[in-house]
Amino acid sequence: MTQPLSITCPLPVQRYPQVLLAHGGGGKLMHQLIQELFLPAFGSAAGSAHDAATLVLPGQRMAFTTDSYVVKPLFFPGGNIGTLAVTGTVNDLAMAGSRPLYLSVGFILEEGLAMETLWQVVQAMQTTATAIGVKIVTGDTKVVDRGKGDGIYINTAGVGIITTAPEQPPITPLSIQPGDAIILSGDLGRHGVAIMAAREGLEFETTIESDCAPLHRSVQALLATGIDLHCLRDVTRGGLASTLNELAQATQLGMRIEETEIEVLDQVQGACEILGLDPLYIANEGRFVAIVPLAQAPVAVTAMNQHNPPGVTARIIGQVTPERPGQLILHNRLGTDRLVDMMSGEQLPRIC
Amino acid sequence: MTQPLSITCPLPVQRYPQVLLAHGGGGKLMHQLIQELFLPAFGSAAGSAHDAATLVLPGQRMAFTTDSYVVKPLFFPGGNIGTLAVTGTVNDLAMAGSRPLYLSVGFILEEGLAMETLWQVVQAMQTTATAIGVKIVTGDTKVVDRGKGDGIYINTAGVGIITTAPEQPPITPLSIQPGDAIILSGDLGRHGVAIMAAREGLEFETTIESDCAPLHRSVQALLATGIDLHCLRDVTRGGLASTLNELAQATQLGMRIEETEIEVLDQVQGACEILGLDPLYIANEGRFVAIVPLAQAPVAVTAMNQHNPPGVTARIIGQVTPERPGQLILHNRLGTDRLVDMMSGEQLPRIC
Repeated sequence: MTQPLSITCPLPVQRYPQVLLAHGGGGKLMHQLIQELFLPAFGSAAGSAHDAATLVLPGQRMAFTTDSYVVKPLFFPGGNIGTLAVTGTVNDLAMAGSRPLYLSVGFILEEGLAMETLWQVVQAMQTTATAIGVKIVTGDTKVVDRGKGDGIYINTAGVGIITTAPEQPPITPLSIQPGDAIILSGDLGRHGVAIMAAREGLEFETTIESDCAPLHRSVQALLATGIDLHCLRDVTRGGLASTLNELAQATQLGMRIEETEIEVLDQVQGACEILGLDPLYIANEGRFVAIVPLAQAPVAVTAMNQHNPPGVTARIIGQVTPERPGQLILHNRLGTDRLVDMMSGEQLPRIC
Repeated sequence: MTQPLSITCPLPVQRYPQVLLAHGGGGKLMHQLIQELFLPAFGSAAGSAHDAATLVLPGQRMAFTTDSYVVKPLFFPGGNIGTLAVTGTVNDLAMAGSRPLYLSVGFILEEGLAMETLWQVVQAMQTTATAIGVKIVTGDTKVVDRGKGDGIYINTAGVGIITTAPEQPPITPLSIQPGDAIILSGDLGRHGVAIMAAREGLEFETTIESDCAPLHRSVQALLATGIDLHCLRDVTRGGLASTLNELAQATQLGMRIEETEIEVLDQVQGACEILGLDPLYIANEGRFVAIVPLAQAPVAVTAMNQHNPPGVTARIIGQVTPERPGQLILHNRLGTDRLVDMMSGEQLPRIC
């Protein structure tokens, strides 16, 4: 995150300290909100005067994705709902092997929300988008009655351009082959533990910050190596266990991973023990899995580490196997194999 | 609306009669929801196995838009939140002069929502999308705690292709000229009154149904005439008064309309009088304004009426003037002029 655009909310907060139902009603107050809060933040690209943004794409193959964000609390160490709403959708675009270009944003605001809170979130979105190089080009605001929301829910949809040659194999689970290496881009569990600590008011010896970060640069670096990128998947809700179970089921191949190769920070591990959480199931917001031919894995690891934040290291954590089709097997520290199922029930709701 | 796809919800509702927090958690239940409810409705195009949909566009100029839907109640005469979420976003794409192609859908569900209710909404979305010819290609589901939502909120984002020649003037408020005709596609107020009646349990002599309908065919018919289409705008939140005020302000031209040319059904007028609502400010979901050179207006009216539902008639309701820049003037039945301001405050919240 770079510096905020401005300290002061440009909308007169003395007059409108809180969001009113009328801010979503299509009349004067909604126009004031667009003109005096959204446009100063997002710029004129977020065209208030049109029903839709008009885009000229530098190609005809594109990726299109959407995610809603309902994280609780709205602000947490390492980010807020706004940074999450931009990076999360950018990451989904990146996982399709595309270069993220444009975002839409739909706000559902709760009547009574502090206007300053909205301003902070909106600024965070714009700062994050600028740093990534995506444009927020169209948007919408609805306001729901007090008690019928939870401050702010955000939906972002994203458009990216696929730059790989059409003759290259597509980056999907269906390209995964037995023998492929499974590479994890960094350590696990920071986002979930940061949210949980913020929500429960827990204090640990050191503050654990969310790993929330855009992944498009790592993906572009991977693409630039020219290796056979079989599949990419960000490790979010449901954690690594659910992500790899999904891929195992989609391919009907086995996934075998080594516990000793999966990094979890000591303070995250400690927090997980206190909270009764398993790092394999915790959501992350800046980690992904790349599946590539084993021989090309070292090149992939190097490329992924080029854009990793300091202290975050990509590693080969396992391999795709023809045995145990549809299953994820963890070879644990004790040397025995354990079947790791997809998350059942809900470990930690409203993490993103 | 055509027939529903299936009477029975394919997900075992005996076992999961309600939405649980875990249905948004990224684990087994979320996958079951996707596999057994969303995919049977939306088809495999709504690829569960990928983070983003991959699209090949038949051109490089596209329109991109988003809207969230928080209408209350979820079901109302003439539609429901699902039909609204598809038609509303399709209409925004149409207003940019584009042919709607793809939609994303983001659900924010409240814990405890009846699974059957979700199924009905999802079916309505697919039926509406099929009738229009748009594909729902990517989606997301979040679940919020009981009391922190209001059953279902939906965001749809849409992508459409702009088929007009690049040398043609763009369809935006900036193309509006003094002297242009203002054409309204039909009568006003049905949607708002239908919602209000459903919400308040009011009974009128005849049921007033929402005008909720897709407008893309009318727009395509307008484009096919080859006339100079200066601006299109759907008449939604804030009603005709707010729509024309926006255009007057954006162009710094005057908008002068004739009250006698603006049609309001008798039962809508009656309901408005009982409810204390002004039809000029009521939201519609199947009406739009076209602004074209006066000489070409009759051709435009004929084209718009080709795809109007039975009993709905487009009319020239007024003209753009160099006088009264930035203002909307209503020439009323008594022969006097009245300044009509943009809606101030909130006439009817959560109408869409």
